[in-house]
Amino acid sequence: MNLIQALNWRYAAKRMNGQKVSQAKIDNILEATRLSASSMGLQPYSILVVEDENRRKEIQKVAYNQPQIVEASHLLIFAAWDNITEAQINEYINNTIETRGVTPESLADFKNSLLNIANGNTPEQNYQWAARQAYIAFGTAIAAAATEEVDATPMEGFNAAALDELLNLKEKGLRSVTLLPLGYRDAEKDWLVSQKKVRREKADLFLEVV
Amino acid sequence: MNLIQALNWRYAAKRMNGQKVSQAKIDNILEATRLSASSMGLQPYSILVVEDENRRKEIQKVAYNQPQIVEASHLLIFAAWDNITEAQINEYINNTIETRGVTPESLADFKNSLLNIANGNTPEQNYQWAARQAYIAFGTAIAAAATEEVDATPMEGFNAAALDELLNLKEKGLRSVTLLPLGYRDAEKDWLVSQKKVRREKADLFLEVV
Repeated sequence: MNLIQALNWRYAAKRMNGQKVSQAKIDNILEATRLSASSMGLQPYSILVVEDENRRKEIQKVAYNQPQIVEASHLLIFAAWDNITEAQINEYINNTIETRGVTPESLADFKNSLLNIANGNTPEQNYQWAARQAYIAFGTAIAAAATEEVDATPMEGFNAAALDELLNLKEKGLRSVTLLPLGYRDAEKDWLVSQKKVRREKADLFLEVV
Repeated sequence: MNLIQALNWRYAAKRMNGQKVSQAKIDNILEATRLSASSMGLQPYSILVVEDENRRKEIQKVAYNQPQIVEASHLLIFAAWDNITEAQINEYINNTIETRGVTPESLADFKNSLLNIANGNTPEQNYQWAARQAYIAFGTAIAAAATEEVDATPMEGFNAAALDELLNLKEKGLRSVTLLPLGYRDAEKDWLVSQKKVRREKADLFLEVV
């Protein structure tokens, strides 16, 4: 399936059937997500991968008991950095030095511009920016799951503070932003499976600037 | 190219060569973007498509003179709704009724939950939420361009207030969020073309929850 076919095939499954997704498909979805575009390349987020069913039952309780969280095979939790620190910027710069074989001096201006942005913002502003970056990865993961013919249900509806507490995210410098259960639709139990996709018309969504 | 190959191929081109992207490829990128996932299906944003070169020269002036804006073939501007209004929710509900052939009564609870969310937020909160939704579409567009082997340079660096003023976005109920020039890399002029992609290692980016 090409990307457009995959995006037409996908929908936000309301019920899943418990079938396991192969490790090869999970690996492909994670790799596409890892390759996502990110402003200045920083990737200011982590993605938690939850396969353990008991853990997912705990998480379900702080997510309005949505059944897909347990009926899925894996649950991804997109969690943004709660701030952007000098240590995190240094880690990214060091990764760039190692990957590209360049000198620290050649990256000094770039590093300073990152530091200026991060230090010029409040932690909340840095978090909000990091959360937007996490949404780019989230969008990539949704598309990647579809190309693997794996169902994925994007979720914003959960108690983020309670989830952060449950998984000790605060001490990891993270705040949960979105959930993405990965699994297979339960075509018999899901009322949505037979419904047409609703999207804004091209002429409505896109505005030509002349 | 599959999605992973496409994401490895892509990078944020710093220079483009002015070559036109075929209408078929533009249409595919826009169609994938239109099919993006969106919370509750609302798609609370518009995407402006700018092909006219003089317009792009004007826009470049409020975007730190980044050359890709003019060297690209097309410029996409992702602009989030500045609020979520009852009229917009009604339009979405009516689209759902028409697309799925269902009754207004069957959507009454869903409509009320949308209204409760929108009315419970300030306009700024609704805008921030709409902007995050726009980032999902932005992520999809970046991936879609790559699968078409079209270069795309995601940009957050521009004067959003000045761009909104230039394109009268305020009176359309929109606020610009991100830019995405679409075109072809200029391999001779772009220092970044030969540099390895830097991404966080799998073991660093993904945290297994046990």
